Amino acid sequence: MQRVCFLLRVRRERLAEYRERHADVWPEMREALRASGWRNYSLFCRDDGLLVGYLETDDFAAARAAMERTGVNARWQAEMAPFFEGPPGRPDERMVPLAEVFHLD
Amino acid sequence: MQRVCFLLRVRRERLAEYRERHADVWPEMREALRASGWRNYSLFCRDDGLLVGYLETDDFAAARAAMERTGVNARWQAEMAPFFEGPPGRPDERMVPLAEVFHLD
Repeated sequence: MQRVCFLLRVRRERLAEYRERHADVWPEMREALRASGWRNYSLFCRDDGLLVGYLETDDFAAARAAMERTGVNARWQAEMAPFFEGPPGRPDERMVPLAEVFHLD
Repeated sequence: MQRVCFLLRVRRERLAEYRERHADVWPEMREALRASGWRNYSLFCRDDGLLVGYLETDDFAAARAAMERTGVNARWQAEMAPFFEGPPGRPDERMVPLAEVFHLD
């Protein structure tokens, strides 16, 4: 089992709206994540827009690839893209895992 | 159950040593965390020293207070303090939880 942590940056001026959208993620998107092996997946944000993702999965590369194959993910990522800082692009392609330095079950 | 995520900043020039220390946390410290209700606790770091903590607990305030009452935590935090950026102080007192914006079991 892999524990994955990644960081993204939401535009500060759109953070409130980003939070609203994430209180109401499409059921089809939630189901696609689950079916693709994303478990215990949380997003946390700091007031300046720094976003932390944490999830558990058997194989992150496989879990990402499985999401890539769903239509709902492309639609969701297209709607989320304008919320993020940086050059245009899909936010899910910028999920670079950090190094795990400690773990206690 | 609470999911807690916090951020700290390790001095970049001491990051390698910080990682080494965390590959070999004292068994007494691990046991104190466990007994204090810190579960599924991970630390992740980015190359620039940004550190992400994630844990699950019934009550973070109570879990912190329980650690405060252990002697081993004071010893551990004193040894860790010089690794962190910012004014002198105990790193565990700077663990400010971020807001959770999304969760999928």
